[in-house]
Amino acid sequence: MTFIESLNAAWTRNDSLLCVGLDPDPTKFPVHLQGRDDAIFEFCKSIVDATADLVCCFKPQIAYFASRRAEDQLEALIAHIRVTYPGIPVILDAKRGDIGSTAEQYAIEAFERYGADAVTANPYMGRDSVEPYLAYRNKGVILLCRTSTPGGSDLQFLHVGGMKLYERVARLVASEWNASGQCALVVGATFPAEIARVRELTSDMPLLVPGIGAQGGDIEATVNAGRTANGTGLMINSSRAILYAGRNEDYAAAARQAALATRDAINRFR
Amino acid sequence: MTFIESLNAAWTRNDSLLCVGLDPDPTKFPVHLQGRDDAIFEFCKSIVDATADLVCCFKPQIAYFASRRAEDQLEALIAHIRVTYPGIPVILDAKRGDIGSTAEQYAIEAFERYGADAVTANPYMGRDSVEPYLAYRNKGVILLCRTSTPGGSDLQFLHVGGMKLYERVARLVASEWNASGQCALVVGATFPAEIARVRELTSDMPLLVPGIGAQGGDIEATVNAGRTANGTGLMINSSRAILYAGRNEDYAAAARQAALATRDAINRFR
Repeated sequence: MTFIESLNAAWTRNDSLLCVGLDPDPTKFPVHLQGRDDAIFEFCKSIVDATADLVCCFKPQIAYFASRRAEDQLEALIAHIRVTYPGIPVILDAKRGDIGSTAEQYAIEAFERYGADAVTANPYMGRDSVEPYLAYRNKGVILLCRTSTPGGSDLQFLHVGGMKLYERVARLVASEWNASGQCALVVGATFPAEIARVRELTSDMPLLVPGIGAQGGDIEATVNAGRTANGTGLMINSSRAILYAGRNEDYAAAARQAALATRDAINRFR
Repeated sequence: MTFIESLNAAWTRNDSLLCVGLDPDPTKFPVHLQGRDDAIFEFCKSIVDATADLVCCFKPQIAYFASRRAEDQLEALIAHIRVTYPGIPVILDAKRGDIGSTAEQYAIEAFERYGADAVTANPYMGRDSVEPYLAYRNKGVILLCRTSTPGGSDLQFLHVGGMKLYERVARLVASEWNASGQCALVVGATFPAEIARVRELTSDMPLLVPGIGAQGGDIEATVNAGRTANGTGLMINSSRAILYAGRNEDYAAAARQAALATRDAINRFR
């Protein structure tokens, strides 16, 4: 199955547009995990096990592992998801972007070393920089389009020939880079009008939407702006609001409650 | 010393604008190194030891290490450079770009884990995404501006209000993001006219210039376009043409000859 097929199946099977972002910050872990060598793996595994029937995908953020020399724990975590929940795609959130020969190395990292189903990538260096990922025909590439923090406007809101840069990126990806149907886009929940505009430009392309929860994005506005005709098309990411819903030994149960509430809140507007 | 101070000192001490890019590809290593667990470290260390008096900086490209689970060898390599050649700055070529809370983790990775003096970064997500690097006041941030492959034109050549996007990035970095004097820019050697334009927009800001050697950029045109009034201002990168100048046991000596020839070719036009 391709990434897009897995995602479609997971949307249906779990009746969910929720993506749980795995951004492990050990300073926020419950006390009983702190100091353990495998604390990052154990924390994330508990979150995965508590929420796997409520999500359409998981999204580990590689920076949180790399800053703590925990690449081995990231490998173990993704392997756990693939073996235990084979229908749930894993997006490696790495936002890579480099010339082709280097992008080939990043593709090996994401798809062969970690076994991710999709990777996030930056469009600034153009099509060359994305092709090595697309060469893996069953994998997905999720390109930054309109990002969720104020600095996102510095470049993405510049006017380029009758439209803004993020709209141009959406059109370029939809009309050219997505010829093999492997692409998706990142569009922040903090800008619902722009989600609607990207949806208009990209037909049914999946959109990864960060920014609900800790960053303040509105669920109703996000779903209304981004859902496709059949009520899917979105991977709505929540990280901190789910991971750190509880701070004690019951953190996994608290995460499950937060994920359930978020999934259901999303579903009310589909 | 800050990154910029170290770079200035190395330009003078080694009379060199050459940056040696460390992009280790084990399939190109000499036979006697192949199969060794520490082949990547040993190969790169030999190149460093053979060229350290000929360069203004070294630039390891992290993808080549990450694709082979060799983060430990990257740590050891940068530690070797810092201890043995403390005056030569190390640029971690990672081209990171993410929201502030994630960029904080990438900054820890680059500056605390690896001990790099500077990191390359992608400007697409705006100022927020760069500030966590700038918070390390003695470190440098080298932003992608005009990249060296054909796909670079997809976005960077779009017209935004009377100039092209890469010019806008150059101006934005020079006039705003560089308030603390920590920034530099990446401008490919394959586009000398654009190097000249970026030099015009950025006063004496250091420019990292990939694309000579394997990618075909011209040394004379690059130096003429990019040097500052005092004949510096450039980190002209060569990777493959130096690393793989020889393929046998004398590879390090061959690399030294290639580095010497490149440094001297650059110096003829300063």
